[in-house]
Amino acid sequence: MIKYLNTLFLIATSFAAGAQQSSRASQIKQIYDEVLLRGQCYQTLDYLCNSIGGRLSGSPQAEQAVNYMFATIKNYGFDTVFLQPVMVPHWVRGAKEKAAIVQGKQRIEVPICALGGSVATPKNGIEAEVIEVKSIAELKTLGTEKLSGKIVFFNRPMDPTFFHTGTAYGGAGDQRGIGPAEAARYGAIGVVVRSLTLAYDDNPHTGMTRYNDSLPKIPACAISTKGAETLSNLIKNNGTGKVRMYFKQQCETLPDVLSYNVVAEIRGSERPDEIIIAGGHLDSWDNGQGAHDDGAGCVQSIEALRLIKVLGLKPKRTLRAVLFMNEENGVKGGNEYARVAALDKSTKHIAAIESDAGGFTPRAFGVEDSMAMVHFKSWEELFKPYGIEQIRKGWGGTDISPLRPQGTVLIGYVPDSQRYFDYHHTEIDTFDKINKRELELGAAAISALMWLMSEEGVH
Amino acid sequence: MIKYLNTLFLIATSFAAGAQQSSRASQIKQIYDEVLLRGQCYQTLDYLCNSIGGRLSGSPQAEQAVNYMFATIKNYGFDTVFLQPVMVPHWVRGAKEKAAIVQGKQRIEVPICALGGSVATPKNGIEAEVIEVKSIAELKTLGTEKLSGKIVFFNRPMDPTFFHTGTAYGGAGDQRGIGPAEAARYGAIGVVVRSLTLAYDDNPHTGMTRYNDSLPKIPACAISTKGAETLSNLIKNNGTGKVRMYFKQQCETLPDVLSYNVVAEIRGSERPDEIIIAGGHLDSWDNGQGAHDDGAGCVQSIEALRLIKVLGLKPKRTLRAVLFMNEENGVKGGNEYARVAALDKSTKHIAAIESDAGGFTPRAFGVEDSMAMVHFKSWEELFKPYGIEQIRKGWGGTDISPLRPQGTVLIGYVPDSQRYFDYHHTEIDTFDKINKRELELGAAAISALMWLMSEEGVH
Repeated sequence: MIKYLNTLFLIATSFAAGAQQSSRASQIKQIYDEVLLRGQCYQTLDYLCNSIGGRLSGSPQAEQAVNYMFATIKNYGFDTVFLQPVMVPHWVRGAKEKAAIVQGKQRIEVPICALGGSVATPKNGIEAEVIEVKSIAELKTLGTEKLSGKIVFFNRPMDPTFFHTGTAYGGAGDQRGIGPAEAARYGAIGVVVRSLTLAYDDNPHTGMTRYNDSLPKIPACAISTKGAETLSNLIKNNGTGKVRMYFKQQCETLPDVLSYNVVAEIRGSERPDEIIIAGGHLDSWDNGQGAHDDGAGCVQSIEALRLIKVLGLKPKRTLRAVLFMNEENGVKGGNEYARVAALDKSTKHIAAIESDAGGFTPRAFGVEDSMAMVHFKSWEELFKPYGIEQIRKGWGGTDISPLRPQGTVLIGYVPDSQRYFDYHHTEIDTFDKINKRELELGAAAISALMWLMSEEGVH
Repeated sequence: MIKYLNTLFLIATSFAAGAQQSSRASQIKQIYDEVLLRGQCYQTLDYLCNSIGGRLSGSPQAEQAVNYMFATIKNYGFDTVFLQPVMVPHWVRGAKEKAAIVQGKQRIEVPICALGGSVATPKNGIEAEVIEVKSIAELKTLGTEKLSGKIVFFNRPMDPTFFHTGTAYGGAGDQRGIGPAEAARYGAIGVVVRSLTLAYDDNPHTGMTRYNDSLPKIPACAISTKGAETLSNLIKNNGTGKVRMYFKQQCETLPDVLSYNVVAEIRGSERPDEIIIAGGHLDSWDNGQGAHDDGAGCVQSIEALRLIKVLGLKPKRTLRAVLFMNEENGVKGGNEYARVAALDKSTKHIAAIESDAGGFTPRAFGVEDSMAMVHFKSWEELFKPYGIEQIRKGWGGTDISPLRPQGTVLIGYVPDSQRYFDYHHTEIDTFDKINKRELELGAAAISALMWLMSEEGVH
């Protein structure tokens, strides 16, 4: 009899689980249908890119972007929309950079751009012999004797054999991140870094460099990959000591500026104290339009929330979209958001999704927390019809990382990575590189995952 | 003792299987590394698109493409390279088409292009009242009374809620394929078809239409999606009977032309009589460069073979790359290839892979044969590190379909589908829409699958 009852119980619960799965599948289909038929994120991104443009922290465009997104979101009828103040750095590029490789009587102009945070060159630029290196470690081997007074040229390419281009980026990124500071340690007077991209073209890629306060700050720029090959070949063919480089940049760091994170919220009906966020960063580099990095993540996060609202779905837990300010050169917005969240002891941020890898076709979610990941695995089948093949271990994102100490489950939205570093931090990260459906499918994926976490928790 | 021996045997075989899997994984990594470091398919496609261009069957460009690919492949040192003659249709578009919507005194020019195979309009074009329909079935309801002497406008959009855009294409394709023939049945004098795309823009999409020999042949064109919306809105706002359309096209069908399939082969070392092919189609529509459709599939098929050759891998079975002529408007090349294959009783085509869905990032293989699919499933883990998430049931492709009666296992290479129909059969299917890595990853995926089938068979 007990056995019989057990069997009945098993049938009943598996029937209930099956019914729940099927109702979840139909809610998720509603979300996807809505975005593909009546999505609004593509149009919002169009304005952000084509009418506002690059939005570096502290710039007038960043301020316009805050105002525009705030006004747009206000129209969606969320329960709360607010601005969270935060002081941000204000670095400006100044006049267009100039650079030339000088070899004998040859003078070959090459495309460069100042690295974010870099100091200017002297007014008339600098010119010095170029020493090519492939790693930070090589600096130590060469030492002050060989590097003093020179321009160090970091030229280790990203490794194309990694399938995930982010891995290749990570493997080359130290050259840009700490290369200039480390070169200064050995007396170098300037640094040129091969652009962090797998594309072979004329676009220099900017990005943040971090000085060491106990060392001199020397001007640092990125050179296009074609420029890097030209420079490297000239050194190879003419011998070390024979090739010089000239570059001029007029960037400067101004006083910090008041800016804002933009936050929209739908209040949970049963557990309003448990908060789930999705976010991207509203700032971008100044040279392009910040379309893939990270206008896409911003409009997807807002759209994820709007889809739930417009479909009349009532989340049990509180859902927020957060547009962080200053991911690119300071993470002040991400830090401030986490600081304020920690102060409010009546609520807990249980999960955070970040979309900051481009508006490309969806592939996966990466989850930092193993237990949550196992729980989410049971939802994989719900996502497979929409091209999200995997919910796996993975990194969350820069802006949500400051929430980690609060026990928040951190999740990275993972679109296809093949094209991302072609555009990343360049003049060509523009709206025309965005495919409407790919962007919308990402918004729906984030919306669906927020909805599932809201209804079924994170563990 | 027997139990002990069984255990030993199990350990030994699973160790052997494990070792084999690991050696397969390392061979596949070699294939991917080779293409990502030293791939040649992107450069070949550059020439095919930018130096030759659109390659409609029977055109001088199709002939140039045959000669160029033959010469290129000759350099790769395959065991055999040959041309397989085939007679193909020769349809020419003639002068650029013209079209306008006429409403009262308004005359709005709209972008159109003749459908492949269409007849010309009279020299000065045709002008008639437009009747909008959403389906073939609707024609019967309207009948000769309403349609005689009119221009029928097929305006059922592709359904954006399908994740796989190919499904949406299939759902709307009858309007272009048989719409003109069916409209002629009820006395219509011309047909305008909404372009088969999910993009909303000014690019008309051509493609084959098939007349019914027992009915009049009436001129048929595609209108851009923006043009279709303009036309539909004018009809809606002014009422049926108030909107006319004018169009002029000068296309014609010339006598058939001798052309060729291009075939390259590496002879198998152990079972040379078992043949595995990978192919794409070398012809394309005339209006663009045939970059994604299907220059990509051609260069990937050749590259798949070249990778095996250059790595010194010795396939047990015979491998071929086949560049089919005339997929777009006749499938004469695919039919001829299968006819010749069937004649040779000493060999058997055991498997065929077709790449004809664009050079986008790899997602899956679709296999028609269930038994083979189950066998291939055991290889899924080998492909997952490279973004091929699924080996599943699916359609092979148009050019390899004629091999079906020979029991050939038919396999479709499935790249990401989101962007494909933005470019398909238009002026903007050009080389700049190709991403080098995405193209190369596809070539490696096809190469790896050919290699696995060569070494381990198809069942």
